[in-house]
Amino acid sequence: MENCADRLVRAIGTKGNPCIVGLDPRIDQMPLFITENAIGRYGDLDRAVRGCITEYHERVIDTVADLVPGVKLQIAFYEQHGVSGLLAFKDTIEYAKSKNLIVIIDAKRNDIASTAQAYANAQIGRTTVFGHSVPIFDADFVTVSPYLGRDSWEPFVDTCRTYGKGIFILVKTSNPGSSDLQDLRLAGGEELYVTVAKLVRPYALELLGESGYSSIGAVVGATFPAQADTLRELLPESIFLVPGYGAQGATSSDVAHCFDEDGLGAVVNASRSLTYRFKTRDMSERAFEQLIRERTQAMIADISDAVAARIRTTRQG
Amino acid sequence: MENCADRLVRAIGTKGNPCIVGLDPRIDQMPLFITENAIGRYGDLDRAVRGCITEYHERVIDTVADLVPGVKLQIAFYEQHGVSGLLAFKDTIEYAKSKNLIVIIDAKRNDIASTAQAYANAQIGRTTVFGHSVPIFDADFVTVSPYLGRDSWEPFVDTCRTYGKGIFILVKTSNPGSSDLQDLRLAGGEELYVTVAKLVRPYALELLGESGYSSIGAVVGATFPAQADTLRELLPESIFLVPGYGAQGATSSDVAHCFDEDGLGAVVNASRSLTYRFKTRDMSERAFEQLIRERTQAMIADISDAVAARIRTTRQG
Repeated sequence: MENCADRLVRAIGTKGNPCIVGLDPRIDQMPLFITENAIGRYGDLDRAVRGCITEYHERVIDTVADLVPGVKLQIAFYEQHGVSGLLAFKDTIEYAKSKNLIVIIDAKRNDIASTAQAYANAQIGRTTVFGHSVPIFDADFVTVSPYLGRDSWEPFVDTCRTYGKGIFILVKTSNPGSSDLQDLRLAGGEELYVTVAKLVRPYALELLGESGYSSIGAVVGATFPAQADTLRELLPESIFLVPGYGAQGATSSDVAHCFDEDGLGAVVNASRSLTYRFKTRDMSERAFEQLIRERTQAMIADISDAVAARIRTTRQG
Repeated sequence: MENCADRLVRAIGTKGNPCIVGLDPRIDQMPLFITENAIGRYGDLDRAVRGCITEYHERVIDTVADLVPGVKLQIAFYEQHGVSGLLAFKDTIEYAKSKNLIVIIDAKRNDIASTAQAYANAQIGRTTVFGHSVPIFDADFVTVSPYLGRDSWEPFVDTCRTYGKGIFILVKTSNPGSSDLQDLRLAGGEELYVTVAKLVRPYALELLGESGYSSIGAVVGATFPAQADTLRELLPESIFLVPGYGAQGATSSDVAHCFDEDGLGAVVNASRSLTYRFKTRDMSERAFEQLIRERTQAMIADISDAVAARIRTTRQG
């Protein structure tokens, strides 16, 4: 079975960029041609929720599938619509996979032992029931939170090994409040996020692919470039999933700190700044697709320039 | 709107004990009278999954509803069955509420800003869509993980205020790996879990009920009684949700450290040790109900004795 990091690295190579499009449903911000009279058209509220989310994402995926290596789904925005939202979540994952996109679930799950295993089964593995082994959401990667310690990510690591999947462990997140715990200085002198990185490294070394990268990655926010430099050194084999570009204010120069000297080693996500924030919801299908495509191309150009500059600086230095 | 801590304290008073029954579906461990020929009886695998989980929990709830103040659902065990599992999750919550039980979702959700708000909407709040405000899972309490900092729990606190709900923030968990991060000593000399408790306290003070307890509680594992003593002093207004009794090895004497001098301030959960771990799956409905009831009564007696001993010791001391 191919290592999941190798699959991601190959997809980055094929598309020529490391940009990930976030698919976070915000029904009240979708264009009117998706949502207008949705309850009437779909028959009831539950069907309208599932229908609008699925249709919106299929259009976005059709528009960007030839441009980017993958998509990231923030499960919270689906979960808030209950079972209808999670049906659309499953629809969206299946559609993205049918277009050969790498699928990352941002779920930040964290629990222990058999409970962590149950989450791993749901997101990237399989569940055995009545003698059948059933894939559930079956993404390529899922994000995992580390507060409960090693026994909270070990079941995910095992699942990655069994099914050729990957995880990104939260090490240094992009939000202002990430300093509350993650930047706390420990008695030994290092910050908590550094300790987390050191705890993660041995697991990263266990699941190395032929690309030299591991299926055990890290979430490293672009909003803290100095910390990204530190983490790049501490976790040389881990691919970084980088939030914070776009809506959260990080620039491409900030993002560049998450890449290796070879210009690899990170994927950069943008969600709202690509797929929402419209001047008006009253736009044509064609105008919508054109806007999503232009924004994605602009992000790709911006990130590619910054990464190229990073490579030049490194070679000169 | 009544404060959620007050509702929980009243339920503890009515039932005369602080024991919570965990409802974690493990289909392969359920009695055969629930699972035998389930696919044939329910029509297909998805319906059998939902049907068995819902039926099992309705039987457990019917058996214990007059004994305990509430139930705790570990969402991971439902999520691993995908949409069918989450339909059963919703069924189970609705059934528990119809029997006037307090419902706690153990979800350990953690994210920031609008994403954290989406989780809060799903678990304890409401989601507005197409002009309708819709309750989703609509539990009384949900557990929240703190690694992302204050901005990860603030949207939950806001939701508690709006809808009269509550949360339990993970402070010191019951698993062996909880020492990896939570026990790390900071440069100032205190452990990380102590710092988390101090970050949580101001929020606890914001949502005090007439009982003197807050809707903002804490998860404190029974497996670490010394840390529980420390946390009991640092978070006097927070109700502790205490895992670790039973299957994880903590005794009732360990658990007693999570209670206040008045014998209140904590609820103790047991899952597998009450509702699974059968010598044989081949048992009658009557034998099953009798066993669940006896085990629950034994736990209640054990915890009540330990709490009573704790009150006596405190008064003498």
